[in-house]
Amino acid sequence: MRSEDDRLSQTFAALANSTRRAILARLAEGEATVNELAEPFDMSLPAISKHIRVLERAGLITQGQKAQYRPCNIDVTPLEEISRWTEQYRHIWEARFDLMDDYINQLSGNQPKEI
Amino acid sequence: MRSEDDRLSQTFAALANSTRRAILARLAEGEATVNELAEPFDMSLPAISKHIRVLERAGLITQGQKAQYRPCNIDVTPLEEISRWTEQYRHIWEARFDLMDDYINQLSGNQPKEI
Repeated sequence: MRSEDDRLSQTFAALANSTRRAILARLAEGEATVNELAEPFDMSLPAISKHIRVLERAGLITQGQKAQYRPCNIDVTPLEEISRWTEQYRHIWEARFDLMDDYINQLSGNQPKEI
Repeated sequence: MRSEDDRLSQTFAALANSTRRAILARLAEGEATVNELAEPFDMSLPAISKHIRVLERAGLITQGQKAQYRPCNIDVTPLEEISRWTEQYRHIWEARFDLMDDYINQLSGNQPKEI
């Protein structure tokens, strides 16, 4: 079994490409075949298939087993993991917004809130 | 100016490495010099410096300008961007939890909630 650290690295690496993110955005609307996924991109089928394999290895999509028609589906489990990972930093950007509020209050002549 | 797509790709690529994520976790606690950042890792200073440069190029850390003592600081702006990007998929994993709740209710003999 891959460690959580390895899984996160693989998810982040898979998302570091705008075509792969666009494929996920399309699959969020419903399943699609490789041909359907390739349509909006000026890209060969083998190039799209390669992106799909990267997403599949990262657990972000699953592909059906029917012989000719193998629809792809999104699996959001790895996205949920990176969402949880990112949450640990939320207090930092929220604290920055609070500081900005205080500064704007000072500029407009109001006192920052008493604690 | 880099496009939002390029910025997201660069952020995801920078985060696709467990050492770089550990450096960010350390900096979330407060500023640190390159030597302090290198300490917990069995890695040469040049190797750590290389990771720091990747994080700096992605806008995830800033480095002070004082000659000998150049402390690194975290900048969470790119993390906030990927948090917003991930949020667009939240409804999918939340819907999955709702389905799971209904299934557990059925197993335990309860009817799923009427809509």
